[in-house]
Amino acid sequence: MSERTIDWARDAVVLIDQWCLPHEVRRLEVREVEELCAAIVSMRVRGALALGAAGALGVALGCVRGRDRGEDVRDAAHKAAESLRATRPTAVNLARGVERALQGVPDVDAVVARATEFLEEDECVTAALAHRGADLLEALLPREASWRVLTHCNAGALACVSTGTALGVIGAAYERYRVREVVACESRPLLQGTRLTAWELQRAGIPYRLIVDGAAAGLIVSRGVDAVVVGADRIAANGDTANKVGTLGHALAARHAGVPFIVAAPESTIDPSCATGASIPIEERGEDEVLGWAGRRVAAKGVRAWNPAFDVTPGRLVTAIVTEERVIRPSSLAGPTTGS
Amino acid sequence: MSERTIDWARDAVVLIDQWCLPHEVRRLEVREVEELCAAIVSMRVRGALALGAAGALGVALGCVRGRDRGEDVRDAAHKAAESLRATRPTAVNLARGVERALQGVPDVDAVVARATEFLEEDECVTAALAHRGADLLEALLPREASWRVLTHCNAGALACVSTGTALGVIGAAYERYRVREVVACESRPLLQGTRLTAWELQRAGIPYRLIVDGAAAGLIVSRGVDAVVVGADRIAANGDTANKVGTLGHALAARHAGVPFIVAAPESTIDPSCATGASIPIEERGEDEVLGWAGRRVAAKGVRAWNPAFDVTPGRLVTAIVTEERVIRPSSLAGPTTGS
Repeated sequence: MSERTIDWARDAVVLIDQWCLPHEVRRLEVREVEELCAAIVSMRVRGALALGAAGALGVALGCVRGRDRGEDVRDAAHKAAESLRATRPTAVNLARGVERALQGVPDVDAVVARATEFLEEDECVTAALAHRGADLLEALLPREASWRVLTHCNAGALACVSTGTALGVIGAAYERYRVREVVACESRPLLQGTRLTAWELQRAGIPYRLIVDGAAAGLIVSRGVDAVVVGADRIAANGDTANKVGTLGHALAARHAGVPFIVAAPESTIDPSCATGASIPIEERGEDEVLGWAGRRVAAKGVRAWNPAFDVTPGRLVTAIVTEERVIRPSSLAGPTTGS
Repeated sequence: MSERTIDWARDAVVLIDQWCLPHEVRRLEVREVEELCAAIVSMRVRGALALGAAGALGVALGCVRGRDRGEDVRDAAHKAAESLRATRPTAVNLARGVERALQGVPDVDAVVARATEFLEEDECVTAALAHRGADLLEALLPREASWRVLTHCNAGALACVSTGTALGVIGAAYERYRVREVVACESRPLLQGTRLTAWELQRAGIPYRLIVDGAAAGLIVSRGVDAVVVGADRIAANGDTANKVGTLGHALAARHAGVPFIVAAPESTIDPSCATGASIPIEERGEDEVLGWAGRRVAAKGVRAWNPAFDVTPGRLVTAIVTEERVIRPSSLAGPTTGS
């Protein structure tokens, strides 16, 4: 995908409204921080790196609008930073984007420059990650065969600025004629697999099939896939990985079957301030996402739900974490691991 | 639930239309075998033991209608049996119900009597199973605490004649003041957890919460549940268990966390003709169930899916299988196990 998922244009944040996909590619022009925060909470923009970009551009937006209104730039920047950070607690990149843009305060043009640089760096990082990840798959998997690779949720271009993490790796391997088929998990409750990953794969011409999340274990255990490749929202120092709810189940199945389980994420997703996954805050979202879909309720009145947005895969279940710089084997990292 | 999910009345099969739940309790009066087969395929009636009842009553229906039309009863019975058996290949009880009713041929009244006896036996069996299962949970889990129990899909009264298997066990344990909360997995693609299990638990006044299937692993691994209790559609001689897709993932998480994983199923679900799970036929259903949600299409045009209705949990991941007669520890059974 050559267009950016999220960008800065005409002193505003322009983003693809992911709620309209796959049926319509609609761009939102967001001019106020509150509006951007609402778009983040409702997941019109989502995905670890796209949230990083939203954090950086959101601070720029706050400063530019503050300047327009004659407000103190420092106040406007910090108010924007606070609102943005509160939207989604698990993805560490959101906070990183905010921090980066704040470095330009109180010079508004410097804030905008820092934010747009952040997006450019992201694109370089994910491009490098994609190739390093494809190298890793070639090292781990039989070279004489083409592979079937399972992924979860959407760690594609739509989760980043313009190249995906997990889907970036898969795409690079596909270009090397290594990928026969992608198996995309639908990723309840918000169906990012069905709506976003399937849409990206279709546009890229990569063969794929969609499954319900519960079908992954049977497929992995029967060795119906050669590798599992997922993204990450935050990685603890010991390799414990928070990612979209459902990821842990795939890791357990992969371990049981001896199938490589790969996390593809930039260095910026690693949070050394979290020693283990136990320190990663896990966002709980509204019950309605579980009880219905797209505003249509399936459950009876009064039914209660529990809706964690992420789960934590213990590092020792992760075969390797691939970043733009290196391949990390979590089992070789020092420190305790979470989970029993 | 005192009413039967499926019954024989006025020379017809009367069943609760499970597609109308939870919003409406509607009963269908089915007078032709083809109509019953369509109701089975579309899952207006589903669940291992309810399918057994449908098989038995379906043969009775074929014979009664055949007699009405002056057809040869043997022909009518065998034609009905063939159509019924072809509807859903995985659940062994469907075939058992058909066999039982066929024993009455060519005496139509004997066919009807065999079929209705089959339902009565089922009720005795599931009642005994519920209490034996609650005894097993008391033996396995700390007696000083009340438990949180996770279940998958619907193995309740709606899957049987009038008492559930997994949900029967959970209900009996609840009546002994042992169950604090049930965690019900929604069970994509057809959401039997959301539509059926939640409805049954709500009617029974048992506290529960609903989760997406992908959230189960995180909950189990963090020891947020004390036991997993599921039903079964067919159990091989070595304890390998076919159940609703998604079950295997829960079993892997339970094994990882050291949480008991219990299969509650009558003796009739055990199929000694299948040495291992590898011999159990796994039904694949239409792609549309995956590509949409609650009848509404979510995926873009052209998206492909794969939709196995069941998965097979290797017997060695099963802590115990409880039937109306005994507790089986699959790890103590002879023979090979499937899965890697």
